[in-house]
Amino acid sequence: MSEERVASLNEFASKKHPGLVGVEILTCTAQEVTGQLVVREDVIAGTGFLWAPVVITLADWLCAAGTGESLRDRDASFTTIELKTNFLGSAREGETIFARATPAHLGKRTQVWDVEVRNQDKDRTIALFRCTQMILQGGPK
Amino acid sequence: MSEERVASLNEFASKKHPGLVGVEILTCTAQEVTGQLVVREDVIAGTGFLWAPVVITLADWLCAAGTGESLRDRDASFTTIELKTNFLGSAREGETIFARATPAHLGKRTQVWDVEVRNQDKDRTIALFRCTQMILQGGPK
Amino acid sequence: MSEERVASLNEFASKKHPGLVGVEILTCTAQEVTGQLVVREDVIAGTGFLWAPVVITLADWLCAAGTGESLRDRDASFTTIELKTNFLGSAREGETIFARATPAHLGKRTQVWDVEVRNQDKDRTIALFRCTQMILQGGPK
Amino acid sequence: MSEERVASLNEFASKKHPGLVGVEILTCTAQEVTGQLVVREDVIAGTGFLWAPVVITLADWLCAAGTGESLRDRDASFTTIELKTNFLGSAREGETIFARATPAHLGKRTQVWDVEVRNQDKDRTIALFRCTQMILQGGPK
Repeated sequence: MSEERVASLNEFASKKHPGLVGVEILTCTAQEVTGQLVVREDVIAGTGFLWAPVVITLADWLCAAGTGESLRDRDASFTTIELKTNFLGSAREGETIFARATPAHLGKRTQVWDVEVRNQDKDRTIALFRCTQMILQGGPK
Repeated sequence: MSEERVASLNEFASKKHPGLVGVEILTCTAQEVTGQLVVREDVIAGTGFLWAPVVITLADWLCAAGTGESLRDRDASFTTIELKTNFLGSAREGETIFARATPAHLGKRTQVWDVEVRNQDKDRTIALFRCTQMILQGGPK
Repeated sequence: MSEERVASLNEFASKKHPGLVGVEILTCTAQEVTGQLVVREDVIAGTGFLWAPVVITLADWLCAAGTGESLRDRDASFTTIELKTNFLGSAREGETIFARATPAHLGKRTQVWDVEVRNQDKDRTIALFRCTQMILQGGPK
Repeated sequence: MSEERVASLNEFASKKHPGLVGVEILTCTAQEVTGQLVVREDVIAGTGFLWAPVVITLADWLCAAGTGESLRDRDASFTTIELKTNFLGSAREGETIFARATPAHLGKRTQVWDVEVRNQDKDRTIALFRCTQMILQGGPK
């Protein structure tokens, strides 16, 4: 990991989907990516709790950063072909959500990444995310 | 469906997670919810295509609206316990994404909703989404 | 579909995993595969209802048959990289389970198949299955 | 864990779906269940590799055993409402598959279990399985 890489990722995302909800990458290597989000009022659903898909905006972005890091071939790209999330808990406004993404499989044709998402203030896991990245030789389709 | 219900949902979401990316509900009954999103530059990922989790922000919101519609008991609430998406295609900036949510199962304890997401400009399905809602008697946990 | 193809698939599976639990393919084309299973005592779980993974043995086999049918290239093979099932109901001993598999996506690199599984005697859907097949050029890895 | 509990589970399953393919439980507590399967010719698919749903027959049975162990209330039962598997590898005839199930969430209404399935002979993970069990007060529906 270089601090430049993390700064570059956060700069890119700042005006994009992850940045719109406050997602920030903390560390990024091909073996682990971490990030967080402070729950603002605009990501609170009608139930008074964190809007569930925000967790996916966070988790997906960490996996994308890690997958990019793991691709050694400059010509390769990737696309997420499926993702699954189990929600085990939630968060209230003002609480901090922390996520840690790790690769479960780094194959030539596919990668599988796992993300555990935690409510830092409650010290409990609130979501388990898993996705499949398809590696594309020669850039995006 | 009443037009008031749709207007109320869009008003609520306008400053929330779905509204931040431009999601709009078009119709809403307990049997079908439709919505759309015009792909803006801020939801384009580094690949030049639509950021995948935006599809989930759209689909999840339609299912939440439909689930709310289907709960007859005023005291009941619900929470999404899991969701899964398969991505089959994508979209470019300026294209319109249309989604249609329908219930696959309306049980006492759980509901299962399906969403098909289409790229209107390309006239093709770009994602298949399915989620499980847990019905909570007496409001959110 | 040819009757010979169906007979050949059932002959192959008769002493294999699907055959062990009584799965039978009824029809098979690249656009639709149907099959059934009469629930025997040996696939009843401790709850008195059909053992859930038996539904997957059925659904997966129909998708494999359909994927095989859709591969035009004699040198191509495929492997299931992920599958997801939502269980909506079950079945009792003696009841007949019917399943219908259809392709949701027939791409060059991947196929996505959907299966709806029904309890024929109760006339209701008991499971929704979806899987991703990765197409392998030049046979299995 | 008691050896009697493990013997009782294996006795029950011996003529059932898991037993038909050779699944054996090795250890069982509410915090961890392990089991294995020696790959026989009848669970080899047309590709020459292990039939993918056999992995689910194994994993699902371990989770059912662990969930049963964790239910303190004698009147409670459970049902699997959804399961998801990512396949990362496979196995050949004669190889041994080992699986370890652990609870990711033990809630009042639901439990989420994870299973890692390994090819012992190749010393690599071949599948990641995750399922949701719904707890039913007063026995099965």
